[in-house]
Amino acid sequence: MLSDKDLIKLALLEDVGTGDITSAALLKNARLKPAGAIIAARSAGIVSGEELVQLVFDEIVGEEVIRFVVRDGHEVVPGDVVAEISGKPENLLMGERLALNLLSHMSGIATHTRKLVRLINDYKAKLLDTRKTTPLWRKWEKRAVRDGGGLNHRMGLYDHVLIKDNHIAVVGSIEDAVKHARRNVSPVYKIEIEVDSIDAFKEALSCGVDWIMLDNLSVEEVSLAVGENAGKVVLEASGGINESNIVEYAKTGVDYISTSDVIKGARPLDFGIDF
Amino acid sequence: MLSDKDLIKLALLEDVGTGDITSAALLKNARLKPAGAIIAARSAGIVSGEELVQLVFDEIVGEEVIRFVVRDGHEVVPGDVVAEISGKPENLLMGERLALNLLSHMSGIATHTRKLVRLINDYKAKLLDTRKTTPLWRKWEKRAVRDGGGLNHRMGLYDHVLIKDNHIAVVGSIEDAVKHARRNVSPVYKIEIEVDSIDAFKEALSCGVDWIMLDNLSVEEVSLAVGENAGKVVLEASGGINESNIVEYAKTGVDYISTSDVIKGARPLDFGIDF
Amino acid sequence: MLSDKDLIKLALLEDVGTGDITSAALLKNARLKPAGAIIAARSAGIVSGEELVQLVFDEIVGEEVIRFVVRDGHEVVPGDVVAEISGKPENLLMGERLALNLLSHMSGIATHTRKLVRLINDYKAKLLDTRKTTPLWRKWEKRAVRDGGGLNHRMGLYDHVLIKDNHIAVVGSIEDAVKHARRNVSPVYKIEIEVDSIDAFKEALSCGVDWIMLDNLSVEEVSLAVGENAGKVVLEASGGINESNIVEYAKTGVDYISTSDVIKGARPLDFGIDF
Amino acid sequence: MLSDKDLIKLALLEDVGTGDITSAALLKNARLKPAGAIIAARSAGIVSGEELVQLVFDEIVGEEVIRFVVRDGHEVVPGDVVAEISGKPENLLMGERLALNLLSHMSGIATHTRKLVRLINDYKAKLLDTRKTTPLWRKWEKRAVRDGGGLNHRMGLYDHVLIKDNHIAVVGSIEDAVKHARRNVSPVYKIEIEVDSIDAFKEALSCGVDWIMLDNLSVEEVSLAVGENAGKVVLEASGGINESNIVEYAKTGVDYISTSDVIKGARPLDFGIDF
Amino acid sequence: MLSDKDLIKLALLEDVGTGDITSAALLKNARLKPAGAIIAARSAGIVSGEELVQLVFDEIVGEEVIRFVVRDGHEVVPGDVVAEISGKPENLLMGERLALNLLSHMSGIATHTRKLVRLINDYKAKLLDTRKTTPLWRKWEKRAVRDGGGLNHRMGLYDHVLIKDNHIAVVGSIEDAVKHARRNVSPVYKIEIEVDSIDAFKEALSCGVDWIMLDNLSVEEVSLAVGENAGKVVLEASGGINESNIVEYAKTGVDYISTSDVIKGARPLDFGIDF
Amino acid sequence: MLSDKDLIKLALLEDVGTGDITSAALLKNARLKPAGAIIAARSAGIVSGEELVQLVFDEIVGEEVIRFVVRDGHEVVPGDVVAEISGKPENLLMGERLALNLLSHMSGIATHTRKLVRLINDYKAKLLDTRKTTPLWRKWEKRAVRDGGGLNHRMGLYDHVLIKDNHIAVVGSIEDAVKHARRNVSPVYKIEIEVDSIDAFKEALSCGVDWIMLDNLSVEEVSLAVGENAGKVVLEASGGINESNIVEYAKTGVDYISTSDVIKGARPLDFGIDF
Repeated sequence: MLSDKDLIKLALLEDVGTGDITSAALLKNARLKPAGAIIAARSAGIVSGEELVQLVFDEIVGEEVIRFVVRDGHEVVPGDVVAEISGKPENLLMGERLALNLLSHMSGIATHTRKLVRLINDYKAKLLDTRKTTPLWRKWEKRAVRDGGGLNHRMGLYDHVLIKDNHIAVVGSIEDAVKHARRNVSPVYKIEIEVDSIDAFKEALSCGVDWIMLDNLSVEEVSLAVGENAGKVVLEASGGINESNIVEYAKTGVDYISTSDVIKGARPLDFGIDF
Repeated sequence: MLSDKDLIKLALLEDVGTGDITSAALLKNARLKPAGAIIAARSAGIVSGEELVQLVFDEIVGEEVIRFVVRDGHEVVPGDVVAEISGKPENLLMGERLALNLLSHMSGIATHTRKLVRLINDYKAKLLDTRKTTPLWRKWEKRAVRDGGGLNHRMGLYDHVLIKDNHIAVVGSIEDAVKHARRNVSPVYKIEIEVDSIDAFKEALSCGVDWIMLDNLSVEEVSLAVGENAGKVVLEASGGINESNIVEYAKTGVDYISTSDVIKGARPLDFGIDF
Repeated sequence: MLSDKDLIKLALLEDVGTGDITSAALLKNARLKPAGAIIAARSAGIVSGEELVQLVFDEIVGEEVIRFVVRDGHEVVPGDVVAEISGKPENLLMGERLALNLLSHMSGIATHTRKLVRLINDYKAKLLDTRKTTPLWRKWEKRAVRDGGGLNHRMGLYDHVLIKDNHIAVVGSIEDAVKHARRNVSPVYKIEIEVDSIDAFKEALSCGVDWIMLDNLSVEEVSLAVGENAGKVVLEASGGINESNIVEYAKTGVDYISTSDVIKGARPLDFGIDF
Repeated sequence: MLSDKDLIKLALLEDVGTGDITSAALLKNARLKPAGAIIAARSAGIVSGEELVQLVFDEIVGEEVIRFVVRDGHEVVPGDVVAEISGKPENLLMGERLALNLLSHMSGIATHTRKLVRLINDYKAKLLDTRKTTPLWRKWEKRAVRDGGGLNHRMGLYDHVLIKDNHIAVVGSIEDAVKHARRNVSPVYKIEIEVDSIDAFKEALSCGVDWIMLDNLSVEEVSLAVGENAGKVVLEASGGINESNIVEYAKTGVDYISTSDVIKGARPLDFGIDF
Repeated sequence: MLSDKDLIKLALLEDVGTGDITSAALLKNARLKPAGAIIAARSAGIVSGEELVQLVFDEIVGEEVIRFVVRDGHEVVPGDVVAEISGKPENLLMGERLALNLLSHMSGIATHTRKLVRLINDYKAKLLDTRKTTPLWRKWEKRAVRDGGGLNHRMGLYDHVLIKDNHIAVVGSIEDAVKHARRNVSPVYKIEIEVDSIDAFKEALSCGVDWIMLDNLSVEEVSLAVGENAGKVVLEASGGINESNIVEYAKTGVDYISTSDVIKGARPLDFGIDF
Repeated sequence: MLSDKDLIKLALLEDVGTGDITSAALLKNARLKPAGAIIAARSAGIVSGEELVQLVFDEIVGEEVIRFVVRDGHEVVPGDVVAEISGKPENLLMGERLALNLLSHMSGIATHTRKLVRLINDYKAKLLDTRKTTPLWRKWEKRAVRDGGGLNHRMGLYDHVLIKDNHIAVVGSIEDAVKHARRNVSPVYKIEIEVDSIDAFKEALSCGVDWIMLDNLSVEEVSLAVGENAGKVVLEASGGINESNIVEYAKTGVDYISTSDVIKGARPLDFGIDF
């Protein structure tokens, strides 16, 4: 795992490489004074990414100063000033693209999350993300989900037990799989199992797991499972859920709804830097 | 810059962390034999990402074998087998999510690019990407654009000169900016200038640049510029262009159309691993 | 986080630096043939560290072959051959010290863990480790605990919620602390709270946590808590527990006993390489 | 080799991973003011590790201030304040465990070293450490030995020549081994040879080495060697020496006594952070 | 690619390793006050390397202050003070060798470049460097060339197309090679082709490349090519050119002269630090 | 410190960056068969760098095979085949420049060293290098010195004590400086002192150091010192020595002559790759 600072350092190197040749050629002898700039929203949504933008300008020289006017998790409309920056023009130009790429990406996710969260606001179900994230940016995409009002599912393969078909196929039965997990895994972790039918759900329910993921079950099947469960274990609906059907799933009374759409269905939110 | 292998190593660490606790607990004493699996398309599109998927399974243990049946740049329909893998089940499970996340992301971009490219196939204009990419994955997103039939604009700030408003504002005039660039920059690089009005375009045209980007100009203005230019310099239309208006811009006779939509407008293409 | 390979690469660089000057000077023109060697136990205990020793010899040149005769978690007595190696003498000499340092360290922990586990074998209580580990080697020290028959507590600050006095002091009350945790933390994590008195224990019990750590409570107090709890939440005794008093704590009927002694109380187990 | 800062960065990442989820959930909206804390000794010993503890809090945010009241190499008794810290509570909590793990480990070594050094204080022999150290922390464990009053043997395979049995076996004779070393090695390095019998000692003595290690020789044999040597070369007794027999070896008049016990026989010294 | 800071960090680690043992032993208890020092030129030439020297002292502790009196690209004569430093003596001693090694190396290149540039000052031809650079220091050696008044050829294999014999041999003909390049390469890059005869030059001229490198052609052949070209494409003379024959090549009227001698023919410029 | 493999990986990334665009465009669909190539000497000298060249081609894909016909330390004349390679053309082209840059640089040093060594062959004095090396390549430049028949002085600040004027100035006297060093430094290191006058030499001689460097002393002064010393300590002449005066210094009977010229006075030896 990279530290946050190293992640930004590498992202900046990707863009700047051996140097910004345009600024070097044009601003070389200009002995420029620090200039002011603002980051402004160009569309409406929820801001997320403040910490990463800060790290971008910290990495460049350390003399740049950035102050966020709108903090993560808050709404903006087009024209709203999100942050004020000051620094040498060549440095602001160097960090501009990376800062905006990150801010747009994370704010887009927060904005889309907020939309989905509002749709199911009146129901018990809470919104969860998945492991379908952009490699190397998962921590931050999951942060954006929280800024949008959603909750996170596990961070990776290391912090939560999720038993899938392939595991069950290898071990032989749901019962044995759960037994192995209980015996071998650190007791600080919860044990979740993925089922893809009502029959499998019933078998899992009788094995003492903490949490059952109902994968690709219809709204009717999820309703059935919720009834059968009667609050015994945590129930999560998953698989092909997005804004077109999320309310139907929420109405079943399920505890959690998880969907990759919360991150993968988002579009970048538009921001610009004006000098 | 990270090597490709290190990029994949870090991406895998992000997901696996201190270990896949589910597989460790369930498959521990299983002494499993190598199993076979296939990666299959679940929607129609253009494949891209073969090399990264290969690196994922190389990184895990080196014993996994993966063979691509459909190569980068080729079309798939749902159900098509894209690759065959064999290896230990716990290793395939470890690499599964990362491999699919990368393959889906890149193939989504290739698929969207192909669509845009086909729209303007009958015109002179070629499609270019931009620097609005996902940090740390630019090289590969640009590769996906090429797999889709598009062309790449510059890789970063280091391999092409692009003079923008902020540069001109600091230097004082378009003419001086171009002069500075010609004198100070390595002659192996082309000099491009971004203009946002017909007046600025005319001024740039008289200064001896290699390439002019017409930024946020209307279709009419771009037509005007193309006429005025009469083939003297390379002309690129840019700003807010997507599938809704790309054909109109292509009709102007401009040389290149660049748009962040080629990457940012793409949705992941769905793939699955079946054991 | 470093990959396991990079961890070993760095550990080898620490010892070898710019080169093993003795071997370079003495064996330079010797054109030595691969030699065989064995790793043998010089005291009795439980083996742990097979995977790291393998990585050491993999890192050196890749031509060395090592085969473990006694696998992790199994017992050895002095003289037992643990592994057979073959390779160039200068390479075996280069990896020898690091391989033995790792094997001795981990096997020492596994051996000490096994001893503690056996002491409480007849009771319900299971043995847990803590975060008092050697920086950069936690994953492997916790692996050694498992090889010795113990269980792991959380890996770090990121995979389990543990509310301590300082948190409570800042938030104001146990009740509020637990409420905040339930609302803000991903639901995949369990919530544990540390209490240092019977009064605090009772308060925690009424707040709906999953797990209570009884920190530095006397054997009598732990007994009291176990009775009061009546199986409602998981109970863990912690603080100053080692082989001198672990049985007393186990007799209380507590679910888990956690102690840094499992790792910090271990002495290296002696191994040697013989050519 | 990692820089000291990178070593600490990685050690912190090991513990914090993707974030301290407890503090994030509980202290999130608390907008906490900087708090003061002290690091206090909970047992008696010698302090070592100041520089590493400083680096831990530097790494976290840079705003934390830490001032050491007791400096490396000085004695503490239980209750002594070793250092004063101030900073945001969530940051102090983040660095607490790593700082204490390092301080306890190094101070434990310094304390144990001091004890051994005092035992042989009235004799000519000086105490040396060995290469049996914790991988990646050798530099700092050897620093702790110095803080305790001991001296260091070589840092690694690269800064001193030590000819061992395996080298001699390959080359053919002690005489040839020493000749090769004299001819091929940079003359800035001393040449030491390890012997495991009086006969081998005599042979080595006649070959012009700088230093002879008497490995696993009895006290009587070491005495014999010291007499025979009559001050010609440096003599070092090694192998199985600890507090039970170190004085006997010192009485022989040998120049140095080296033992892994100086580091591996140490127990962590107990410290706590109080807010 | 390493960031500039990481490059300097690694270079410092190469020299300092586990610590400067001389300063540690001698200055340990000295509690030294910050001292002043100057970097002075000991021979005449052009200064280059200011930024790297700054990074060296930044890396050490951050308290050192360095101020450059003579800036990059300016001339010095023996005795000239180039920079003033203040800091702790042990820190200045630690950075001294690396700082001087870098400053001498880069200034040597700038000095040699200036000499070559002056030789051809009255001609059209500009001086270019090549890819024959010291691995890991190319960016900075090319910076030194610019400080000396030269221009840079491409940075690497990634930012300019240069078609060589081996490419042509594989593709089959100059014409096909150029066609492939035009079709497949991003249009932001120029296309250069290397030819080693007048015949090949003529063929290349007819294929629409941007730039032709005349490799190892005699002065007469280059003259011929310049005449034939009549300003159509950029012409570069290359191969075995140094101060003995550069003026003859410049007289041909060629646009650029590239030579590895600009970097590889330079000797370090002598500087010293005086306390 | 970087591992050798990482050093080469970074050097290759410096040249290849995001990809060799020329080969990618031209050889893309060529489905090329492995080709053979040879590395041949183009001037006369001593070969050095075999191991690094091997690492370059290992890093690229692992399928390239390289076999050295002339080994490190042996002579070549123009036209001699040094190594045979086979592999895919695009891979050979990718590694070509880096491999040749390294081989030329190291062989140039070995060649120049051999020349200097031969000049003093009939005298007692041995040739030593210094710390004036190219940052990040010191280990390899010192290897080239050995391949040329020279010996190495210390690797860095960490493996040998060298007391300089600035140390003496701070401590107060030569006597005190040596005393401090004897007391504080690990006894495995030798203690050398640099003197710049006969008076300082005499003072140092009386203080029990192991080695005295006579810095910038005239040939006469060195002769005087050799007589005075009468074999008591190791004597090293240093400062401004090169092929013009090295024999005169050798005639004095001094033990070692150290000079940066051995590395910095070398010119690259010319090699080429022919397909």
